Amino acid sequence: MQLHLSTWQEVEAYLANSKTIIIPVGSTEQHGPNGLIGTDAICPEVIAKGVGDETGIMVGPTLNVGIAQHHLGFAGSMAIRPSTMIQVVKDWTDSLRLHGFEKFYFLNGHGGNIATLMACFAELHGERSFAGAAGSNRPGIQCKLRNWWQGPKVNAISKKEYGAAEGSHATPSEVSVTYAAYPEAVKDVPMEPELAPRGGFTDAEDYRRTFPDGRIGSNPALASVEVGHQLIKAAVADTIDDLNQFKG
Amino acid sequence: MQLHLSTWQEVEAYLANSKTIIIPVGSTEQHGPNGLIGTDAICPEVIAKGVGDETGIMVGPTLNVGIAQHHLGFAGSMAIRPSTMIQVVKDWTDSLRLHGFEKFYFLNGHGGNIATLMACFAELHGERSFAGAAGSNRPGIQCKLRNWWQGPKVNAISKKEYGAAEGSHATPSEVSVTYAAYPEAVKDVPMEPELAPRGGFTDAEDYRRTFPDGRIGSNPALASVEVGHQLIKAAVADTIDDLNQFKG
Amino acid sequence: MQLHLSTWQEVEAYLANSKTIIIPVGSTEQHGPNGLIGTDAICPEVIAKGVGDETGIMVGPTLNVGIAQHHLGFAGSMAIRPSTMIQVVKDWTDSLRLHGFEKFYFLNGHGGNIATLMACFAELHGERSFAGAAGSNRPGIQCKLRNWWQGPKVNAISKKEYGAAEGSHATPSEVSVTYAAYPEAVKDVPMEPELAPRGGFTDAEDYRRTFPDGRIGSNPALASVEVGHQLIKAAVADTIDDLNQFKG
Amino acid sequence: MQLHLSTWQEVEAYLANSKTIIIPVGSTEQHGPNGLIGTDAICPEVIAKGVGDETGIMVGPTLNVGIAQHHLGFAGSMAIRPSTMIQVVKDWTDSLRLHGFEKFYFLNGHGGNIATLMACFAELHGERSFAGAAGSNRPGIQCKLRNWWQGPKVNAISKKEYGAAEGSHATPSEVSVTYAAYPEAVKDVPMEPELAPRGGFTDAEDYRRTFPDGRIGSNPALASVEVGHQLIKAAVADTIDDLNQFKG
Amino acid sequence: MQLHLSTWQEVEAYLANSKTIIIPVGSTEQHGPNGLIGTDAICPEVIAKGVGDETGIMVGPTLNVGIAQHHLGFAGSMAIRPSTMIQVVKDWTDSLRLHGFEKFYFLNGHGGNIATLMACFAELHGERSFAGAAGSNRPGIQCKLRNWWQGPKVNAISKKEYGAAEGSHATPSEVSVTYAAYPEAVKDVPMEPELAPRGGFTDAEDYRRTFPDGRIGSNPALASVEVGHQLIKAAVADTIDDLNQFKG
Amino acid sequence: MQLHLSTWQEVEAYLANSKTIIIPVGSTEQHGPNGLIGTDAICPEVIAKGVGDETGIMVGPTLNVGIAQHHLGFAGSMAIRPSTMIQVVKDWTDSLRLHGFEKFYFLNGHGGNIATLMACFAELHGERSFAGAAGSNRPGIQCKLRNWWQGPKVNAISKKEYGAAEGSHATPSEVSVTYAAYPEAVKDVPMEPELAPRGGFTDAEDYRRTFPDGRIGSNPALASVEVGHQLIKAAVADTIDDLNQFKG
Repeated sequence: MQLHLSTWQEVEAYLANSKTIIIPVGSTEQHGPNGLIGTDAICPEVIAKGVGDETGIMVGPTLNVGIAQHHLGFAGSMAIRPSTMIQVVKDWTDSLRLHGFEKFYFLNGHGGNIATLMACFAELHGERSFAGAAGSNRPGIQCKLRNWWQGPKVNAISKKEYGAAEGSHATPSEVSVTYAAYPEAVKDVPMEPELAPRGGFTDAEDYRRTFPDGRIGSNPALASVEVGHQLIKAAVADTIDDLNQFKG
Repeated sequence: MQLHLSTWQEVEAYLANSKTIIIPVGSTEQHGPNGLIGTDAICPEVIAKGVGDETGIMVGPTLNVGIAQHHLGFAGSMAIRPSTMIQVVKDWTDSLRLHGFEKFYFLNGHGGNIATLMACFAELHGERSFAGAAGSNRPGIQCKLRNWWQGPKVNAISKKEYGAAEGSHATPSEVSVTYAAYPEAVKDVPMEPELAPRGGFTDAEDYRRTFPDGRIGSNPALASVEVGHQLIKAAVADTIDDLNQFKG
Repeated sequence: MQLHLSTWQEVEAYLANSKTIIIPVGSTEQHGPNGLIGTDAICPEVIAKGVGDETGIMVGPTLNVGIAQHHLGFAGSMAIRPSTMIQVVKDWTDSLRLHGFEKFYFLNGHGGNIATLMACFAELHGERSFAGAAGSNRPGIQCKLRNWWQGPKVNAISKKEYGAAEGSHATPSEVSVTYAAYPEAVKDVPMEPELAPRGGFTDAEDYRRTFPDGRIGSNPALASVEVGHQLIKAAVADTIDDLNQFKG
Repeated sequence: MQLHLSTWQEVEAYLANSKTIIIPVGSTEQHGPNGLIGTDAICPEVIAKGVGDETGIMVGPTLNVGIAQHHLGFAGSMAIRPSTMIQVVKDWTDSLRLHGFEKFYFLNGHGGNIATLMACFAELHGERSFAGAAGSNRPGIQCKLRNWWQGPKVNAISKKEYGAAEGSHATPSEVSVTYAAYPEAVKDVPMEPELAPRGGFTDAEDYRRTFPDGRIGSNPALASVEVGHQLIKAAVADTIDDLNQFKG
Repeated sequence: MQLHLSTWQEVEAYLANSKTIIIPVGSTEQHGPNGLIGTDAICPEVIAKGVGDETGIMVGPTLNVGIAQHHLGFAGSMAIRPSTMIQVVKDWTDSLRLHGFEKFYFLNGHGGNIATLMACFAELHGERSFAGAAGSNRPGIQCKLRNWWQGPKVNAISKKEYGAAEGSHATPSEVSVTYAAYPEAVKDVPMEPELAPRGGFTDAEDYRRTFPDGRIGSNPALASVEVGHQLIKAAVADTIDDLNQFKG
Repeated sequence: MQLHLSTWQEVEAYLANSKTIIIPVGSTEQHGPNGLIGTDAICPEVIAKGVGDETGIMVGPTLNVGIAQHHLGFAGSMAIRPSTMIQVVKDWTDSLRLHGFEKFYFLNGHGGNIATLMACFAELHGERSFAGAAGSNRPGIQCKLRNWWQGPKVNAISKKEYGAAEGSHATPSEVSVTYAAYPEAVKDVPMEPELAPRGGFTDAEDYRRTFPDGRIGSNPALASVEVGHQLIKAAVADTIDDLNQFKG
């Protein structure tokens, strides 16, 4: 069930039986020579939709620009500051809590978001903690961060298909997912070198110097629509398993 | 051309010829008994895509939650605070300016966003004004806010098809656009009364009291996929006309 | 009745019968070669005082620096950022709500303030909307923004006296109002060209380039104390008409 | 010279010879049974005008709502938060620095403002200190806080006229100044007891409990237009003496 | 009693009998050629510990970086912005209020902190004042700022030992206190000139220009471990006297 | 070398050879029936001092209150909001960068700080990334977060001494470190049950309900001064190994 395609009465009916909502969180940032700038938003959005279709769990809007300051040296990359994300996540959850949502499942598509999302949760929970038991007039909430790629079924495919060429940014797995979702956007670009360098980074200038074409350790030329479909299916299944535990 | 489906090299190539980007701005809020909660995000997103496809102008990500505090009395509605939107729009444009974008065309889907978006522009321009000529190390930018429904071709259709039943919230025109975009989400819900009440509002409690099913002055039961297609086509044309002037 | 000239007991007595307060909102910015920098604060202050004197409605302090980043290229112009105005308007109304004021009538003197003031209202109303019905422990408020120049009686005079020379910034009408209020400040300065250019603008540098002496489309050399007195009288009457509707 | 009654060209001419501006800072808060709510704004405004008239030094707009949270238990009192004042003072001085003002003389009318104004100065100076010598592209500024009542000529009059009845809030001296400025607002209200209690306070509830009619230690029934005129004259002279040192 | 060396059950037991906590507030900033960068944090920390040991009153953590923008021209100096201190003090006291602490005694070691700490108190008290009696669900608090050097016993020693060589920054008294606390850190550095210059300052650049080695008016070469021990003893006694009044 | 015990000239000399500073980051929160509230600040402070003594690397002040909203249900616990920590870390590093520090090694004592510290780093690096290469006038910095307990030598001891009784909050290892540092604060308190429950948590109310005496999975009655000394020695060695890599 997708919030954007529902009426308010449908949401009201949903809330009579469930307090859970999935919120896809992505990023808008370079993904190397053949990866889409929207990769990290597209992946959780597509997978969340799959989960929602299969289980009937509500899927909210995608937070489509994330913590990506280190990619700002590449054209088209966008970022919000961590302090901005705290405000946004607060407003989104403040809204949804009003209606009765209490379990927020953030399906994440970007490693760079992890720390700040966890900081957001501390800020959200802290609001109630700082108010004290007496001062609090809303029920507590539960937040969970889940990266779409962290389940066993997804990992098995990535390992089998790409092995050491998976790398950690602009991976063939994530590029495959986007190709499956938008086959019209498949790009055929040679990689030079085949495997991108690995390493750490600080700011955008440092990142660009270390990873000249944007990839980290990966060879996304191996990406394909077919593997993308397998990965989506696997990620939907992995996520449903995890979500069932979260829903309790 | 869609930012989310491009690579950074493609964006770099685009910027050699154009400094313009369209940013759809929407909202996630109730739209009455048969209108989708995502209506105000879907409409500018679909129309911006049409403009991008036809003209090759870059279309950025959709700002999908907006200034909708007055709808928070209806399940599923989400809002960000105006002070949050200022931060978000600043981060988005700060990112895009780095790459050379200078002309920001915000295609808006929600009347409630207008004032705050204009305030965002004042904050953005002010950054450079407060820095003074000497202190400024980036070029000035241009921002334009355009509501997708304000062109002559769109108005002609709305008037002809819906006349007084158009109203001002949950209008048959906007519902039609979303039905054309997502025919699987068409809802068949009776309206009672046929025409919703009109009037002003302040906060969410006041809004809900005045407009019990969420509509203002409209009869969205008249919405149809067919008119939606006409409206999208008209809005694309209207927007291109306006955008040509903006691009100068 | 003026808040600044009242005692707290007098305000307490006033509140037994009325919940309404007028807050003049202005700006401190260049108004061309013969216009006063305080024009946009002086006009609503003088007119609000007239309304207060005639009707007994409470008039609060003037918010005398506004959203005027685009004028910062001219000596003496001052501005606050939109995000600052949100904080200020929140503090002012938070204070006044404590005492029982519920209807805030912002009499505005500067076009540049309009969007941000509306954003302030969304932020104010949102505070209660985000708190939900259960969480809210204060009554809702009503805010209205009114530009002093938008009534029919004022328009009739401006049109008759100045016609096409009225322009849109540093207008002979607003300059006349300030001359009537401060006849000692009347300036006799030739305008070159007689009618200033028209057009749009972004930041301070752009504004100054486009409008070299600060005026937009006007010839304020036509301003006079006499017309100023007529305009004040007309604006007081227009405002009272509108305020009577607002008070309900 | 008053900024509000000047044109931008006149300010430009002024800046060729002087970098100094006086900014009156006040408050809008109860001043006991016969004192005006605007007392703390009126006093520095009137005295600053006197200084400006006599010396030609520029006088800016009055910051008319201040740090007065402790008065919010009395109808009509208004306050801004310290964090808000920091933003406002930053915006005001950021604006004026652009034009070449470098010496900011804050003529204060409210004891409660002192600490926060000094904190504002630390924030302002800190902006340059944090930027480092290399990063700084504007000249340093000087800020001085001066309370209108702290000069020897004013003290002599207060002591002679009111002695122990001066107290520390709603003093006969400040009430006299406002009566001289607005003789139409003179109030004749009996004080009960004659001398108000003295003591400390924390928040608004504590203040109201300790000082039931708002006064601290004073008998403002002794205020008069005549003494007000003497005090204004004395304060203008005291301020000019101090300002001459500041201008260096 | 020190919070950092207590268990939560011990704090709970303490709160059954007392609502008071001492919070040392310092700074991390240059203190001339032989003074420690931690001087202003060390002094109140050591003295607060002495008070806590003697009286059993709870001593909280030390706020060890303060309002010291003017020292940023000297290596190792650190500062927080006033707006940051407001947030920190709010969070610290919000935490402690939850447990029942109501009387906050800030033992300060740095003159530059005074104004901003007072502004923090206005912000804290204001939170309750702005909420109104009805809206407030926590008891009021009391905050007191006390500089460790302001008591009579301390002053007698400083005057007797150092007289005119005390100066106002990097004083032999404060350096002595730190030498008594950390005798391993005693430095033997010649002062040139013996007495540092006096005067005012604005930002870091201005401070460094006026006070080339960081001292103001002092000769800290006179500092000694012995006088430090006397001063600590005196300051503990002075503080206990003052604290007894505060506890009421 | 400790910043607090150095003069500015000593820091200046240090910076001629090194750009590295260790900043201990802790928390002030309950640590069960026999653990000190200052545990998480004491541990990294003591270990950092050991590292500084052995290697000569500079050790800055301890950030002693952290992200601990979930402990606020226990008396004495303190917390700052994540958004506050972002401001504080920005101000601290902004200060130190001015002097030439470029490598910030945060030695952390509290798991709850990890996410927010990483978010702080993204905010810090982002400042430079958002400014672009042209706009940036300071060198990039490097930040590393290291938990004192994560090295192999520490783990070997914890495992050998405590095994399954180590748990994850109020562990015997961390309590031992504090006992070694402050033997006067050793507490002898029976644990009931011996091993605390394990699990997850959200806000303070949830935490207290799940972990009634504050511990998670641990038996800190096993803590001892002796093991504490071993752990400190091991942690100093582990940290030096890691720091040597970081210094590069």
